[in-house]
Amino acid sequence: MSDITSLHLLAPGEMGDFFALLAEKQVLATKDGKPYYRVTFCDAGREVCFPIWSDATLAATCREEWQAGEFYKLRAELRDTNYGLQLEIHRIRPVEEADREDGFDPLMCAARSRFDPEAMFTELMEIAEQVIDDEPLRELVTSIYEQYRDELLLMPAAQYNHHSYLSGYLEHVVNVTRNARVLTELYAQLYDELTPPINVGLAVAGAMLHDIGKLRELATGPAGATYTSAGTLIGHVLQGRDIVREAAVDSDIDEELLLRLEHIIVSHQRLPEWGAPKPPMFIEALIVHHSDDLDAKLQMMVTAISEESGEGEFTSKRNALRQPVFRGKLVEPKEEEE
Amino acid sequence: MSDITSLHLLAPGEMGDFFALLAEKQVLATKDGKPYYRVTFCDAGREVCFPIWSDATLAATCREEWQAGEFYKLRAELRDTNYGLQLEIHRIRPVEEADREDGFDPLMCAARSRFDPEAMFTELMEIAEQVIDDEPLRELVTSIYEQYRDELLLMPAAQYNHHSYLSGYLEHVVNVTRNARVLTELYAQLYDELTPPINVGLAVAGAMLHDIGKLRELATGPAGATYTSAGTLIGHVLQGRDIVREAAVDSDIDEELLLRLEHIIVSHQRLPEWGAPKPPMFIEALIVHHSDDLDAKLQMMVTAISEESGEGEFTSKRNALRQPVFRGKLVEPKEEEE
Amino acid sequence: MSDITSLHLLAPGEMGDFFALLAEKQVLATKDGKPYYRVTFCDAGREVCFPIWSDATLAATCREEWQAGEFYKLRAELRDTNYGLQLEIHRIRPVEEADREDGFDPLMCAARSRFDPEAMFTELMEIAEQVIDDEPLRELVTSIYEQYRDELLLMPAAQYNHHSYLSGYLEHVVNVTRNARVLTELYAQLYDELTPPINVGLAVAGAMLHDIGKLRELATGPAGATYTSAGTLIGHVLQGRDIVREAAVDSDIDEELLLRLEHIIVSHQRLPEWGAPKPPMFIEALIVHHSDDLDAKLQMMVTAISEESGEGEFTSKRNALRQPVFRGKLVEPKEEEE
Amino acid sequence: MSDITSLHLLAPGEMGDFFALLAEKQVLATKDGKPYYRVTFCDAGREVCFPIWSDATLAATCREEWQAGEFYKLRAELRDTNYGLQLEIHRIRPVEEADREDGFDPLMCAARSRFDPEAMFTELMEIAEQVIDDEPLRELVTSIYEQYRDELLLMPAAQYNHHSYLSGYLEHVVNVTRNARVLTELYAQLYDELTPPINVGLAVAGAMLHDIGKLRELATGPAGATYTSAGTLIGHVLQGRDIVREAAVDSDIDEELLLRLEHIIVSHQRLPEWGAPKPPMFIEALIVHHSDDLDAKLQMMVTAISEESGEGEFTSKRNALRQPVFRGKLVEPKEEEE
Amino acid sequence: MSDITSLHLLAPGEMGDFFALLAEKQVLATKDGKPYYRVTFCDAGREVCFPIWSDATLAATCREEWQAGEFYKLRAELRDTNYGLQLEIHRIRPVEEADREDGFDPLMCAARSRFDPEAMFTELMEIAEQVIDDEPLRELVTSIYEQYRDELLLMPAAQYNHHSYLSGYLEHVVNVTRNARVLTELYAQLYDELTPPINVGLAVAGAMLHDIGKLRELATGPAGATYTSAGTLIGHVLQGRDIVREAAVDSDIDEELLLRLEHIIVSHQRLPEWGAPKPPMFIEALIVHHSDDLDAKLQMMVTAISEESGEGEFTSKRNALRQPVFRGKLVEPKEEEE
Amino acid sequence: MSDITSLHLLAPGEMGDFFALLAEKQVLATKDGKPYYRVTFCDAGREVCFPIWSDATLAATCREEWQAGEFYKLRAELRDTNYGLQLEIHRIRPVEEADREDGFDPLMCAARSRFDPEAMFTELMEIAEQVIDDEPLRELVTSIYEQYRDELLLMPAAQYNHHSYLSGYLEHVVNVTRNARVLTELYAQLYDELTPPINVGLAVAGAMLHDIGKLRELATGPAGATYTSAGTLIGHVLQGRDIVREAAVDSDIDEELLLRLEHIIVSHQRLPEWGAPKPPMFIEALIVHHSDDLDAKLQMMVTAISEESGEGEFTSKRNALRQPVFRGKLVEPKEEEE
Repeated sequence: MSDITSLHLLAPGEMGDFFALLAEKQVLATKDGKPYYRVTFCDAGREVCFPIWSDATLAATCREEWQAGEFYKLRAELRDTNYGLQLEIHRIRPVEEADREDGFDPLMCAARSRFDPEAMFTELMEIAEQVIDDEPLRELVTSIYEQYRDELLLMPAAQYNHHSYLSGYLEHVVNVTRNARVLTELYAQLYDELTPPINVGLAVAGAMLHDIGKLRELATGPAGATYTSAGTLIGHVLQGRDIVREAAVDSDIDEELLLRLEHIIVSHQRLPEWGAPKPPMFIEALIVHHSDDLDAKLQMMVTAISEESGEGEFTSKRNALRQPVFRGKLVEPKEEEE
Repeated sequence: MSDITSLHLLAPGEMGDFFALLAEKQVLATKDGKPYYRVTFCDAGREVCFPIWSDATLAATCREEWQAGEFYKLRAELRDTNYGLQLEIHRIRPVEEADREDGFDPLMCAARSRFDPEAMFTELMEIAEQVIDDEPLRELVTSIYEQYRDELLLMPAAQYNHHSYLSGYLEHVVNVTRNARVLTELYAQLYDELTPPINVGLAVAGAMLHDIGKLRELATGPAGATYTSAGTLIGHVLQGRDIVREAAVDSDIDEELLLRLEHIIVSHQRLPEWGAPKPPMFIEALIVHHSDDLDAKLQMMVTAISEESGEGEFTSKRNALRQPVFRGKLVEPKEEEE
Repeated sequence: MSDITSLHLLAPGEMGDFFALLAEKQVLATKDGKPYYRVTFCDAGREVCFPIWSDATLAATCREEWQAGEFYKLRAELRDTNYGLQLEIHRIRPVEEADREDGFDPLMCAARSRFDPEAMFTELMEIAEQVIDDEPLRELVTSIYEQYRDELLLMPAAQYNHHSYLSGYLEHVVNVTRNARVLTELYAQLYDELTPPINVGLAVAGAMLHDIGKLRELATGPAGATYTSAGTLIGHVLQGRDIVREAAVDSDIDEELLLRLEHIIVSHQRLPEWGAPKPPMFIEALIVHHSDDLDAKLQMMVTAISEESGEGEFTSKRNALRQPVFRGKLVEPKEEEE
Repeated sequence: MSDITSLHLLAPGEMGDFFALLAEKQVLATKDGKPYYRVTFCDAGREVCFPIWSDATLAATCREEWQAGEFYKLRAELRDTNYGLQLEIHRIRPVEEADREDGFDPLMCAARSRFDPEAMFTELMEIAEQVIDDEPLRELVTSIYEQYRDELLLMPAAQYNHHSYLSGYLEHVVNVTRNARVLTELYAQLYDELTPPINVGLAVAGAMLHDIGKLRELATGPAGATYTSAGTLIGHVLQGRDIVREAAVDSDIDEELLLRLEHIIVSHQRLPEWGAPKPPMFIEALIVHHSDDLDAKLQMMVTAISEESGEGEFTSKRNALRQPVFRGKLVEPKEEEE
Repeated sequence: MSDITSLHLLAPGEMGDFFALLAEKQVLATKDGKPYYRVTFCDAGREVCFPIWSDATLAATCREEWQAGEFYKLRAELRDTNYGLQLEIHRIRPVEEADREDGFDPLMCAARSRFDPEAMFTELMEIAEQVIDDEPLRELVTSIYEQYRDELLLMPAAQYNHHSYLSGYLEHVVNVTRNARVLTELYAQLYDELTPPINVGLAVAGAMLHDIGKLRELATGPAGATYTSAGTLIGHVLQGRDIVREAAVDSDIDEELLLRLEHIIVSHQRLPEWGAPKPPMFIEALIVHHSDDLDAKLQMMVTAISEESGEGEFTSKRNALRQPVFRGKLVEPKEEEE
Repeated sequence: MSDITSLHLLAPGEMGDFFALLAEKQVLATKDGKPYYRVTFCDAGREVCFPIWSDATLAATCREEWQAGEFYKLRAELRDTNYGLQLEIHRIRPVEEADREDGFDPLMCAARSRFDPEAMFTELMEIAEQVIDDEPLRELVTSIYEQYRDELLLMPAAQYNHHSYLSGYLEHVVNVTRNARVLTELYAQLYDELTPPINVGLAVAGAMLHDIGKLRELATGPAGATYTSAGTLIGHVLQGRDIVREAAVDSDIDEELLLRLEHIIVSHQRLPEWGAPKPPMFIEALIVHHSDDLDAKLQMMVTAISEESGEGEFTSKRNALRQPVFRGKLVEPKEEEE
């Protein structure tokens, strides 16, 4: 057990036992007509692509047994060749249930949030406890989180675009909830004479549930999130409201308060062409929209800067924002003058 | 009892007993500062507007008791004056519950569909029986119609725009359902090799339920339909899907069939900026969209032509379509040549 | 003669005489610099692509005589190789005029409507006879169809997008005309008090002629339809109205009726950005728009479902609608319960 | 004859004989119920509005005979009253055919171009002679102008928006033609190597005919231009091309040259939402678009500045451009320093 | 001095000395032709409108001396008449310079922020001191605030739309700055590994200066803000950047930091059609945009709710957002159950 | 020295000394794993691409020393091979400073305007002298041109789209200035009664400076123009106004005249979505917009026609206009008939 390593930890020339996903298996042919395979193995941190020639030991197994999308346990040496890194495979077999004890995880190849999902979940539940004063509303929110706890811990926030990695949903929602909380607190203090008063708890509930429909819009798998049929035909905005309404059936939440919560979900994308059936029509809905939109766009900027390896002052336009993002000269901070 | 007539049936100079709505009561003042009232009584076919001078017999009653929006039983003479038709009121009192026996109806002033709502309801139920082959789907549709029968018989299709009169909902839905039925039948015959086959019953179910959310979006009253709070914050597209989902809880309808029905409702306005969270994504949804859009626009044309009294070849642009509608020369049909 | 077969009917290993189009002839070079040709022969049902090496018997003929876009008569064997199906050509010559007697048809490679163009033409003429009551209008429509009979029988409805195969024009127009007829009949019955009455004949005439300008916008050839210069610079909407106006010169059609017919053509794409110089301004024009738009979009859905070989519940977005189309689970119909 | 003056030339207190249009006749009532009339007489430079009391000498004639929209010959005194200028009418009768000899003109109330229509017509014909080298093209243009000479001399360029006064069409077309000529000449010199060369004559022909369809879109009357039915249903862009095609029937103009001319008309409004079925696709079409658009917008600016009497540095937004136009400080030019 | 009261403090029947603006002076005429004036006096809290008959004591003074837009000192009694509140003026004279000692203020009629401008100014300067670490940047910001201190204390944030009252600029900027500060602090902590790090000081500087161009776009007067010529022709986005660049001439601020600050101003309205020449291209610019947009829209909601006196659950659409704002049932908070 | 030729002047089989840019150097591998390089040398008129095999004399130098983007002096023979033209290099070294004496120019590979930049510069300065009557305005314009003379002589007008070659800026500006001059002169004559009069000098100044901000938006290098950071973050519209304002600091130009000049720059792209913060608000601004837009679009048409080698009547849509451009049949001009 202790000798299990990871593909992305192998140094060139090193041999090791590890789990990997056969991401792709392609049939090609040499000039003289001999078919061979090009296979790609990967884990979360490395992708290795190399040929299995028709006269290789593994040729028949490869042709007849290996399947793209399946996980394998390999003993192999990582070799640095003229054509880049390749694997010389000594042993290979499909993973088995028992491999989980050795640390195999079917989500091992997926990118993940750098934050601990349990900690994020806990933070959200604590915020709910602290600031949602209305008891039925608070119970509505927390009961939904408890009910879907397992999925929420893993789910990405989107298929592409932003926070599209494991636990990205929680990462996004924590940010939106923090934003909505501080903004609503500032404005509740400023406009303290309004009737009804600005409701911090309602904004936080809306922030925590604005994207809850992703639970039904997306299906999370080893290859990331994909759209469900209902997700494509109905969409997470409507599906999120469904989840809230289902949970509210046995709740004694005030009718208008529930309606406001539903409206926050329905309007959180602001414009019809951005996906909102209705625009925000009260203050808490407006704040949740801005809290969400800011976080999504800001993460797109961070991703554009991080993922693009160029050294220019701007990224290209090939990112989720479809515009250049400014990096600047990236100079070292000046030494403080004495 | 037999001597109850209607305001709009009185000839100038004639006296009669009738029920009427006090539509408006305005305080004005003469040049020398004496206040007087200008009152408007109406029924579905006539509106009469005249002053109650401060020295008139009814002045005090008018000032202290009469309330705009209330119905009254009057005995009055319709007089033709230099200022148009006026009422000389001999007796007046608020309507009482017992007046219903004499034919009083609080919706008496509202415009109505020229079609019999019971007959339209029956026609829809018969179509459902005939063409919705899938039993759970058929029961879902008919049970919703039975459940909301009373509201559906009265409800207009919209606050303004099209079919905005009593029973306008049924009139619109009958047309959309007929359109969807014939169109789907034509295409089901044409593309009979498709898998799954084009489903006439699904299109008819979608047509019958596409606007069912108006039940919750609008509140029907003597003064026509008004938006409910939930109607403004959520909208009939989402609310209609709610009604279907609630009815489906105890149904054993096929999951995908239900999803298709929901999608027809969600997509029936086609584009986001026209109110559809999702565009039509299969044939029956596309047909329901066109069946609906055609009927709505066509009724706007009919209304523009009927309501505008001008004699020009075009109506003005002041109609729900915001464009001129062509009437043409309206010539008498030519005599057949012998 | 009786021994003429078709390329797509040959079984692997079979030899036969057939006509085929040389769709492509590409010069390539082997690694050691020797040029060779890769040629593609096809008929309507099969495409075969293979090399002619520089030392092959046919090498010189291929280089000097064969021309892409020309038809040939071949005697060849269909061979199944490691590189897929190839032809071993025994004899080859360009087709000659006399080959038409053996069934050669220059449109043999083009996709075709699965409906018989003669039958569709006849159906349209019969509808015109039945429902266009106004004699000059009926003669206008039928005379145009008679005049352009040969082109109409062959013409596709568009270069891409929908019904873009031989006789696609008639297939589309038959559908639009059927739609327009049933819809207008429904509404003519419903609004029977209008002046002038809703005119079924006008709607049918408009449906039959709405795309007639494609006669001048597109040129139909072996490789499908291409835009003419006038088509690109003026467009079928305007060109269709031209055809009607030219035909009306010697007609005694009522002036307003002709104007209405022209307007139906001009407005059938509804919005300026969809290609309509004017929006529909009367009922028959509105109905023709919806009849046309529905048929075009519906055929795009059918094509997306049919052409894309994937097995998912949705097609991709790479189709004329640029959106996914829902196929569903495609389950076998359940057995009827006894 | 020599004693005929004009309404707008009368000084307060002066009496005179003149022709005027009864622009409006309204029935009003005094507080005590007596009906009276308020009438408005006008010519091109003045509008006078005053009451005809029920006890006035002219009361009966006014009520029974005077008709709004008709012209009258009056002998009247212009009086300056507390209620503004009024007419004390001494004699009045409808104008007669013979009054034309005394200078009566049914278009006397309409605004006119400040340029002489005959001179503008002549200028256009001279430009055509000078720069349209292709003889059939030149004859096509000039024959259309000769054929519609009378209408063209009077026609406004639009109902509202720009050059919406008598002979406004010619004024606009002269400007567009001058613009197109100088611009095309500049570019023909610059890009003298193009095949085919830039064609100044084609651009001038396009400029002269780009709006020729207004002949059929608008009907010119005493009250300005109004849309014809065909104008509303088809529009001047298409109707202008009709006029060109009709004139070309007996011409031996080169087919491609005619197509280019038609395209200039079809594309001169550039974008679909601005009214162009096709965008400009060659240089001369592009130049005619800019020549036209510049002149239209520039005249809107001039009109906004001239018509709005305010003294601010900007006009309001209530003009055809729907934006403020900058006047500036309008300071007197500084004296030249010595 | 101590006997100076305010117009809006007078009770009906009370007499007092006060300053008021003659907001309007209109010439009207009685039925029998006698001219009279209708005058409107107001202060910040009340508007009184009444006639000065031609035979009144003040008639001549009113006609010849009083000027709309001027301030007067009045001794008058507030009387409650059939026509509403009126003033019986005993003494009246234009205000004099010396009246300032008695509390006269030419901005007395203008609406004001409910916050103390000095306190808001101080808060902003303190935030700048605390969080703008870069010394040249901090000095740039504070020096601009010091330079324009007097105007900034009074200036509204806009002519209409939001914060359109005295000191509205500071109120809006304080909110935007608070928003930007808390949001940037949250994200700086979250993405602490970025190079360069997220710069709270830059975001605060951008928030404080994003609308600084209003100093030149608007001119503040007794009647509120109006656009300057340069404001209309150039706009505050560009003018604000000018102010920053002018102040930077003698600063040794880092070139890239200055560029980032300029970009925040240029991009703060996000989209071209919302007024931004460039979209936000780095994180601080994105945060300032959302901080600003949220505050502007939120204040429009507050204003819509406050200004519209209706009692419905929604405001009308006649507000700066052009949409209904939800008030809800406005029920009293429920008593806590024991 | 006199024996220096150019790469694009060499005939196949000819040897010569010349300067060339190493535009690309790519590492590839043969089937058996041996790496080799594919290099591309070019000058302004020819591009040659060929392999350097691993066993070639130059292999090591190529691998270790040659750098893409650098210029070299070569002695080489141009050989016509089966794989197209290749170079057989006899000698090669990087260019040296002294090579400039032999005619080396680092911009030698860049496309250039076919007009002489000095002549264009002179023409613009002469126009300024002739038609800008206002002395401070004239000096402002000419001093800016003198100050940036060297950059202006070389600068392209854009990175892509139009006039995107060396001296393209001057070529574009000369055209815009000529257009603006003739158009303004036509309208100044037409509307000679306006106050202030139409100002030809202002329009010419605006035309000469409308794109002056490209000096800061773009950086011109051997590989064409690229965006500067400030160019991307701020944009040439704002940067051009900066240049004018900086130059105006020491000028005694009239304040309103300067404001008008700034507005011409700010508004020259007309609509927000086309890049203009404000629309043109006076006549000279409107004329500069049209003069500029026409020249840019017209040059795109010329480029589309010239660059695309096809023989069809239309170009493809792959050009800066994203639409087909009509070439026509390109027939020889007919012989004049005798």
